[in-house]
Amino acid sequence: MATPVRRAAVVGATGVAGQQFLVSLGQHPWLKVRRLAASERSAGKKYRDAIKDASSGATRWFCDEPCPKECLDITVEDAEKLVLDDIDIVFTAIESDAAKVVEPICAKRVPVISTASAFRYEADVPVFLPGVNIDHAALIAVQQKNRGWKGFISPGPNCTTVGLAISLKPLHDRFGITSVIMTSMQAVSGAGRSPGVLSYDILDNVIPYIPKEEEKVQTETQKILGKLTGDAIVPAPFNVSCTCTRVNVIDGHTEAVFVGLQKKASLDDIIAAWAEGFKDFLKLKLPSAPPELIHYTSEPFRPQPRLDRGLYDGMATVIGRLRNDNVLPNGVKYVLLSHNTKMGAAKGAVLTAEYLIQRGVIK
Amino acid sequence: MATPVRRAAVVGATGVAGQQFLVSLGQHPWLKVRRLAASERSAGKKYRDAIKDASSGATRWFCDEPCPKECLDITVEDAEKLVLDDIDIVFTAIESDAAKVVEPICAKRVPVISTASAFRYEADVPVFLPGVNIDHAALIAVQQKNRGWKGFISPGPNCTTVGLAISLKPLHDRFGITSVIMTSMQAVSGAGRSPGVLSYDILDNVIPYIPKEEEKVQTETQKILGKLTGDAIVPAPFNVSCTCTRVNVIDGHTEAVFVGLQKKASLDDIIAAWAEGFKDFLKLKLPSAPPELIHYTSEPFRPQPRLDRGLYDGMATVIGRLRNDNVLPNGVKYVLLSHNTKMGAAKGAVLTAEYLIQRGVIK
Amino acid sequence: MATPVRRAAVVGATGVAGQQFLVSLGQHPWLKVRRLAASERSAGKKYRDAIKDASSGATRWFCDEPCPKECLDITVEDAEKLVLDDIDIVFTAIESDAAKVVEPICAKRVPVISTASAFRYEADVPVFLPGVNIDHAALIAVQQKNRGWKGFISPGPNCTTVGLAISLKPLHDRFGITSVIMTSMQAVSGAGRSPGVLSYDILDNVIPYIPKEEEKVQTETQKILGKLTGDAIVPAPFNVSCTCTRVNVIDGHTEAVFVGLQKKASLDDIIAAWAEGFKDFLKLKLPSAPPELIHYTSEPFRPQPRLDRGLYDGMATVIGRLRNDNVLPNGVKYVLLSHNTKMGAAKGAVLTAEYLIQRGVIK
Amino acid sequence: MATPVRRAAVVGATGVAGQQFLVSLGQHPWLKVRRLAASERSAGKKYRDAIKDASSGATRWFCDEPCPKECLDITVEDAEKLVLDDIDIVFTAIESDAAKVVEPICAKRVPVISTASAFRYEADVPVFLPGVNIDHAALIAVQQKNRGWKGFISPGPNCTTVGLAISLKPLHDRFGITSVIMTSMQAVSGAGRSPGVLSYDILDNVIPYIPKEEEKVQTETQKILGKLTGDAIVPAPFNVSCTCTRVNVIDGHTEAVFVGLQKKASLDDIIAAWAEGFKDFLKLKLPSAPPELIHYTSEPFRPQPRLDRGLYDGMATVIGRLRNDNVLPNGVKYVLLSHNTKMGAAKGAVLTAEYLIQRGVIK
Repeated sequence: MATPVRRAAVVGATGVAGQQFLVSLGQHPWLKVRRLAASERSAGKKYRDAIKDASSGATRWFCDEPCPKECLDITVEDAEKLVLDDIDIVFTAIESDAAKVVEPICAKRVPVISTASAFRYEADVPVFLPGVNIDHAALIAVQQKNRGWKGFISPGPNCTTVGLAISLKPLHDRFGITSVIMTSMQAVSGAGRSPGVLSYDILDNVIPYIPKEEEKVQTETQKILGKLTGDAIVPAPFNVSCTCTRVNVIDGHTEAVFVGLQKKASLDDIIAAWAEGFKDFLKLKLPSAPPELIHYTSEPFRPQPRLDRGLYDGMATVIGRLRNDNVLPNGVKYVLLSHNTKMGAAKGAVLTAEYLIQRGVIK
Repeated sequence: MATPVRRAAVVGATGVAGQQFLVSLGQHPWLKVRRLAASERSAGKKYRDAIKDASSGATRWFCDEPCPKECLDITVEDAEKLVLDDIDIVFTAIESDAAKVVEPICAKRVPVISTASAFRYEADVPVFLPGVNIDHAALIAVQQKNRGWKGFISPGPNCTTVGLAISLKPLHDRFGITSVIMTSMQAVSGAGRSPGVLSYDILDNVIPYIPKEEEKVQTETQKILGKLTGDAIVPAPFNVSCTCTRVNVIDGHTEAVFVGLQKKASLDDIIAAWAEGFKDFLKLKLPSAPPELIHYTSEPFRPQPRLDRGLYDGMATVIGRLRNDNVLPNGVKYVLLSHNTKMGAAKGAVLTAEYLIQRGVIK
Repeated sequence: MATPVRRAAVVGATGVAGQQFLVSLGQHPWLKVRRLAASERSAGKKYRDAIKDASSGATRWFCDEPCPKECLDITVEDAEKLVLDDIDIVFTAIESDAAKVVEPICAKRVPVISTASAFRYEADVPVFLPGVNIDHAALIAVQQKNRGWKGFISPGPNCTTVGLAISLKPLHDRFGITSVIMTSMQAVSGAGRSPGVLSYDILDNVIPYIPKEEEKVQTETQKILGKLTGDAIVPAPFNVSCTCTRVNVIDGHTEAVFVGLQKKASLDDIIAAWAEGFKDFLKLKLPSAPPELIHYTSEPFRPQPRLDRGLYDGMATVIGRLRNDNVLPNGVKYVLLSHNTKMGAAKGAVLTAEYLIQRGVIK
Repeated sequence: MATPVRRAAVVGATGVAGQQFLVSLGQHPWLKVRRLAASERSAGKKYRDAIKDASSGATRWFCDEPCPKECLDITVEDAEKLVLDDIDIVFTAIESDAAKVVEPICAKRVPVISTASAFRYEADVPVFLPGVNIDHAALIAVQQKNRGWKGFISPGPNCTTVGLAISLKPLHDRFGITSVIMTSMQAVSGAGRSPGVLSYDILDNVIPYIPKEEEKVQTETQKILGKLTGDAIVPAPFNVSCTCTRVNVIDGHTEAVFVGLQKKASLDDIIAAWAEGFKDFLKLKLPSAPPELIHYTSEPFRPQPRLDRGLYDGMATVIGRLRNDNVLPNGVKYVLLSHNTKMGAAKGAVLTAEYLIQRGVIK
């Protein structure tokens, strides 16, 4: 039986992440963009005009893929006054402060799939990662009851958490994780306008600090791999310690991971765990899902962001350089690559929406 | 009393590292370049001609600093036939295979300070790091006796080991190190022609593997921080686990370090250890020594290779982002920056020579 | 009527340009790769083994696209002893010195489509650029007669000439060109191992000289746009003056062009000339041809190599920033972008082959 | 006789160009920074606090050189209310819109040396370039009379004009210029926040448009090389046609220049003109002047921004690749490099101030 089409609104549609939503939803078999919202300044304009720079005439479109044609003539609405009568699902791509205001307004009526961190750390808000923790879905009813909402807010993880948590999930299930140390080398496409990263700071450079990033990764990884017990998620019982840096790469976060395990596992055991860890999820063949969530490579110089970020349109976590580690108990170490603006942002959020639709959480 | 001037030869003088030796020895108060050697192809040419590219007429000089004028008219000799009668010390900057042949020939007669790895892992060869392990100097007599040499071979550490071992030394002395995890983000100036790093591979990219680098760092760190006991160095009793990567930076290796300690230490204790750890060495005021071996900064976005590698002409290890780590026992973590072609190569080797002269090991 | 399939050999198959041939010929409707040749060192190995780096185990495959599976098990032959009995066409991707030896051996028997410059400047050798100068095909009979060959050699233009000559062709036909000044900003993927461009030279840098490049562009542009008169090409009667530089871009040559014209032309006239200049060629709908040879854009900040090089799989010349110039007579100026390793190399050569097949020059 | 010390104010002191003024004026023998001004937001804070980022604690200091210590404790004033009673000269480094308001307020009382373009194109405002056009100084009296000011406004040229006009001056004086075509490859340090250049746009890219830049260069070059006749500057009688692009370089603008001349000149004539063109100016030995204004190199791969921008602390125009051009009449072509944030901005403005002091224009 064919899945009926849901009508979607994209909030923050003129920004980078919003445009990635438009691309991810173009030609989507289950989801159709009906409404676009942005800041007051863009409201009332056709989308094609809202992304024109007035002084230079340049089109401010940030994706490699073209804008779906059907979006160009939609009239942009003010995010705070967005009409939801004919909308089944809202995707938001806005700053955290704006999200705190706009997302609850929408969630009163419809499900909100968000890339913002605003609600990520609230006790009644699950942070879904496709294939990893759909069992946290029961928290949605708690959230709706707590807040008196018909809809709900479902924020995705930080882009740096995504690949890490996916790589850890099968290891935790099979061998039990005791500790994680991770150093990230993150692409600039996620940098936005954070202090410390001016336009040319990254040339011939590494920026060794990304404000709040390490805390986010540490907290989110434990939450995502945690266990829903009663009405609450008990964080996964291992510590995560990170150093997050920015390097001169456009797209694709590279992470050097060191993991301690409860049970001794050979490198082949680890590879097998990754290969088999997401079988049930992959069988669903969701529209945005890749054929593998983890692609393991034995090529010694891989993964590399420029060569590997595009695999399955950026929806796979590519892992290589698997070795034993002699510091952590039963330690293994590896390098992973995750596309920060595909699986790590809008397209990952669309995949989450598909999963929630498939499971009946979104009607 | 003024130190008398020693007469030096530089072997491998036309390559990048050899040129860095020329710059480091230009105007040196204790050392004067008398002879230059390179491959057979350059032998017999004046140095100024040996660094000319015949087909394009370009000068192949790789340093920011100009070539010391007195070197330009020296006639380059064949490395394997270098005359040593009027030479007190030899600096070598050649590939490992060539070093295996050339360095013993020289060491029969005079001290050889080397940047090659050829002899680094032999039991009777110390790997000096200025300020860290001059007490290993007693091994030189063992080496001379074993091999029947008047001189000796003293190879410097791998460039990635240098900053790490310097940062660990004061912590090991005061608090006892139990384990080290490190991820490096290394500059391309040290890449040479290693497989996997073609000319444009590094643009918009991270290369997650540098052949043999991790093993070198792990082994050398334990050797350098080890204890000379009888005629042998007992490696420091902690494990080191690394992931070494190449990033799009010209000069300056960045390293994210996680350290476990025997004794609990506050962050202020750590900073104090770094500040006080090299006092005796710094008091010597050796010609190439920086005013601090470790420069600690509390600026949140530092160290950065482009901004910090030039401090004290690349002779300091710049450390920042000191934090507690919750994975390793009594763990701390930090980010360090070390200039791979200054303290990490030729100028570091010159500093070692100064130290050995000052201590009377080199007469 | 379907075009019958020709059997192709690729010489220089393990190098970058050779691999681009394999990708360009994968799934080709008219051409099928039957034989692969490379240097003696690779001869006798299966292709999948010939591209393995023995010491590191890394696969030396340089394209974004995967290697066509059917090529992996072909046994590589020694280029100088390549069997041609069952081959209809040879594609060569080798250095100029090797081309001088290998290409005539092949051309005695079959057509050779080459990316090397070895024969480009010989009087009886046409330099085809698809859509621009198929009328030079009559020179092939002259070449065959001169040299007593059954086949012939057809070298493509230098990658920097390609976009320039395509952009000039419709202007020369309609308005008559009197002079051309051009400054190129070239990608590093074409740099090979030319002196002056070591591995990290291009970081934070511009290299203002590419040996022989300017002469090539100047000579080839006049030859390609020249007129076949009797048995010889009379070069186009205008001077071309270039400065060729290398910039920090992976793929895609950007060129700032200033053109003087015989007849005054409005900017709209120019745009119309580009739009209409290749109609007949485009009607052929050759398998590798793009829907437009020139894509003109009025976006003020375009073309940009990263955003525009991928258009039509790198087979279009993207032109923008069209303006009047007040220095040259009836002057116009514009910026063009051409993909140096697609239309500017192997895939452009494949398009030439298709054109020659369609015209019956290759049987 | 020693030059007496002038008391200086720097307006826009917290921005990049303002900080470059502080560095250029640190330890200056003739000029001493007394007052600093910035936007209202910084007013009332000590300078050391005004450059702290409140949320992250990072110091927002953008120069490689440290901030002169004596500046750190100066209390920043509101630019529009700056006290001038004890100030002899004002240096401004602010946006054009702000300059239109602030600079006339200051110029009523004291000389204003500006990096803004706000007044550059007014008929009674000279655009001084040290060594090139001090004879335009007579225009200052006209400006003072016209506007009833005791001081005056002296804006420096656009950074891209600087190297071009310096390279052209000796050629125009000796041989007469008839036409100029120039393509620039500009560094990102001058990009500011112009539309079209977001933070990562420049990675693996060239941006072929810099709004208003080409018009500025064309107009300013003619003005700077023009002749003061009566109360007005008659622009130099040759056309200039430019394409200005942005490349992935931190500092240093590279320009490919093609020049037509009235009189035939050999390449040696050109080199001699450059060598001798600024003799009188260089004899003055002004504190910020380099030993050569033009440094000509015959190295084929030079100038390169990374290797050559630092020559004489960025105050020289480095020229190479001199060749004949066969398109423009008596044409020559060359490549120049000029440091956009040193001679092309604050330090160039300080050199202008020195020149005006030396000539008695500033008392």
